Amino acid sequence: MKTNKHILDAFKKTGARIETKGRVKLKNMKDFALYYTPGVGAVSEHLAKNPKDAHIMSIKRNSVAVISDGSAVLGLGNIGPYGALPVMEGKALIFKEMANVDAWPIVLDTQDPEEIIRTIIAIAPGFGGINLEDIKAPQCFQIEERLAEALTIPVMHDDQHGTAIVVLAGLINAAKVTKKNLKKLRVVISGAGAAGTAVAKLLVSAGIKDIVVLDRAGSIYSGRPDDSEEKQALSKLTNPRKVKGGLSDVLKGADVFIGLSGSGIVSSEMISLMNVSSIVFALANPIPEIMPEEAKRGGAMVIATGRSDFPNQINNALVFPGIFRGALDKGITKITEDTKLHAAKALAGLVSNPTAKKIIPDVFDKRVVSTLAKAVR
Amino acid sequence: MKTNKHILDAFKKTGARIETKGRVKLKNMKDFALYYTPGVGAVSEHLAKNPKDAHIMSIKRNSVAVISDGSAVLGLGNIGPYGALPVMEGKALIFKEMANVDAWPIVLDTQDPEEIIRTIIAIAPGFGGINLEDIKAPQCFQIEERLAEALTIPVMHDDQHGTAIVVLAGLINAAKVTKKNLKKLRVVISGAGAAGTAVAKLLVSAGIKDIVVLDRAGSIYSGRPDDSEEKQALSKLTNPRKVKGGLSDVLKGADVFIGLSGSGIVSSEMISLMNVSSIVFALANPIPEIMPEEAKRGGAMVIATGRSDFPNQINNALVFPGIFRGALDKGITKITEDTKLHAAKALAGLVSNPTAKKIIPDVFDKRVVSTLAKAVR
Repeated sequence: MKTNKHILDAFKKTGARIETKGRVKLKNMKDFALYYTPGVGAVSEHLAKNPKDAHIMSIKRNSVAVISDGSAVLGLGNIGPYGALPVMEGKALIFKEMANVDAWPIVLDTQDPEEIIRTIIAIAPGFGGINLEDIKAPQCFQIEERLAEALTIPVMHDDQHGTAIVVLAGLINAAKVTKKNLKKLRVVISGAGAAGTAVAKLLVSAGIKDIVVLDRAGSIYSGRPDDSEEKQALSKLTNPRKVKGGLSDVLKGADVFIGLSGSGIVSSEMISLMNVSSIVFALANPIPEIMPEEAKRGGAMVIATGRSDFPNQINNALVFPGIFRGALDKGITKITEDTKLHAAKALAGLVSNPTAKKIIPDVFDKRVVSTLAKAVR
Repeated sequence: MKTNKHILDAFKKTGARIETKGRVKLKNMKDFALYYTPGVGAVSEHLAKNPKDAHIMSIKRNSVAVISDGSAVLGLGNIGPYGALPVMEGKALIFKEMANVDAWPIVLDTQDPEEIIRTIIAIAPGFGGINLEDIKAPQCFQIEERLAEALTIPVMHDDQHGTAIVVLAGLINAAKVTKKNLKKLRVVISGAGAAGTAVAKLLVSAGIKDIVVLDRAGSIYSGRPDDSEEKQALSKLTNPRKVKGGLSDVLKGADVFIGLSGSGIVSSEMISLMNVSSIVFALANPIPEIMPEEAKRGGAMVIATGRSDFPNQINNALVFPGIFRGALDKGITKITEDTKLHAAKALAGLVSNPTAKKIIPDVFDKRVVSTLAKAVR
């Protein structure tokens, strides 16, 4: 394919998207003696006795490991560590360019959750934060939770929380545009993977009560047979009316559709079953659950996708650089539910007059990173 | 201490010795779409199918992990990962400044050899090489050997082989200065840790037959009671005359003393027991086994230390940047005994007219890295 060849050639030409850079020069033996032996010995002794000072006197001050096992890469699925590597590098580039965070890509030659947890704990001392990425559900939930407990640096699975924060930010402004009460929205989420689950949880934390999440088998409800522990937990948080059925069933009377699942699964007819002034976030990449013009034909008032060639791009890159910038700057060790709510509200607040075509800031808006960094508590 | 405060302040001021840098810019959505989603998806698919191309299309092309468990940091001993961190950062800085290698410091929250091996195998896919550092003996031997077997990227424990290469290079020229035959030198090595063991092995590979290695209990000989597996193996490679005793005993008639042990353990009287035109490498840092003026008083003709404030600094930084530069450039997957011999000879060859005060190139000699990189096969 022509497009792909152009991309592969560009990557062959640069070889890598990031590199290292000295922050000091080694011009002579005096520099050597200060920054390497024997000078560094004094710092080694100091940090051995005062490990917390690693946050001010070492790379830990500003470094984030961007880690994946390659089990759920973009829309490509389980393609392993080498498939994940260019995505992690891309994130490391965004971290630096957007928020001056020194991020390093780490891809893992294991997909065993216990092994992943052990490995990340083992390499954590030199990093100021851990950005987990493209790890499949349900393993990602346990991995993140156990790491957050074990480590004293912030750990965030971006597929979950980056997505949840930017979706909530968009939804806050979409509610304003449609003149609906955020907490009273009836929300349908298609996809119960990492992103779908995290979005549902954050919307609950934001006070939204009527949320129905669907997986391949249809709507998730309390008591559904053969559900995993994670889905049982989700069924207790959501679907208070215990709605059963497929997308067409649950979309009836809904205000919001959030697609975090598969391309082209929604038709304009299905959208027309929704409430008036409906909100459609069709976030599958690169082909959304429904194309914007189709959603509009079905009656949607506010439409967002994951793509840059349509209005309202719901893009994680709006979130992770600022969240980690703030956490590193303030020495925050946990990304809590409260952190995420504050971040979403702050992000939404950057659009002073939301319209149907502008519910979320642009990723190149210079205020985004500093605003999120300030919002992190 | 005044000196230490000055160093700690310098480290607090810079915060870190290295950072990341974008090799491409993210100026607009087109850049974003190429280097991140959706563009990167084509590269992910390609690398999942052709993992070897990670060496040309990703960070793996030029990256080295500088890894320590903090169990044997400089002369400070087992001070853990935070103590090791500034040293690993310093090496990463030297890698970049000297050889344009993108090295990242990784310090481990474990000192269990099996756990170290598992962790490094797990994080290896994104790196083009592994530089092990400051890991104590005998664990370091097994860790390096097992990793070299398991991985298809070069693995080198620099305390062992960096030291061995630069010592052999210095010795080749010291033999010329003293007009002695390299292979017929009688060599005494004080210290049977990572460095002492590796130096002994490389000198054997270089054809030197009469080597006696000492540990705290004295000379190591075949059949010595209670020796570890590693020391038994060393006893079979060395000490053909089965010399027993302490340093004063084995130095009688020796041509070369190589100290890789403790400060101030050798007197000028002990040096005077050696053969005429003796060679003394007193490499303990920062205080050598014997100070140069004392060694001279004992009759030493060529004297080297690990320090920059005396002539003939035996400095690992002469070796590791060029070895990895060559390995990365040529896609070399193993650092063999042959690689090390070639490297040592190439390094020695850079001093065209060796003298007692000049047996080894300066670390700022621009030819060093390219010469070693060429020598790596």
